[in-house]
Amino acid sequence: MSEENVVFIGNKPVMNYVLAAVTQLNSGADEVVLKARGRAISRAVDVAEILRNRFMTGLEVKDIKIGTETIETSEGNTANVSAIEIVLTKKK
Amino acid sequence: MSEENVVFIGNKPVMNYVLAAVTQLNSGADEVVLKARGRAISRAVDVAEILRNRFMTGLEVKDIKIGTETIETSEGNTANVSAIEIVLTKKK
Repeated sequence: MSEENVVFIGNKPVMNYVLAAVTQLNSGADEVVLKARGRAISRAVDVAEILRNRFMTGLEVKDIKIGTETIETSEGNTANVSAIEIVLTKKK
Repeated sequence: MSEENVVFIGNKPVMNYVLAAVTQLNSGADEVVLKARGRAISRAVDVAEILRNRFMTGLEVKDIKIGTETIETSEGNTANVSAIEIVLTKKK
């Protein structure tokens, strides 16, 4: 999986990420991977659903993975945070 | 899928849902389904990860589905909200 096809979902408005994904898919990519951690996980699902239902109805969910990542806090401690990875691909 | 094996994730503390799932699995169920909508989606992933990593390490993610549900607001309008369904099953 090329890192170029990954859209990292953060705290910006949902449409920013929808447009980033549409841009990638329209420039030749066959799939796009949405990655998010913590509270942004809900937003990643929103992005996937808006993409599929409104902008690119030819997309399907190929795979969804969940996991736990360890992050370092600003005080130097570590904390566990949930993560999601949604792989969307163009229907053949 | 029996509805009895479903844990609906809302706005309560994560541990409430973890305990609900553990209770179901310890009383004979082979799998449990975590369902959430909107912002609770992130919490559903937290519940799944805490279950798998801390309480029942013999669990695996069998399936994850995402979708869109239409809800009615208190003013009588409709709104679309993202939803997730995480199926966890005991490893054979």
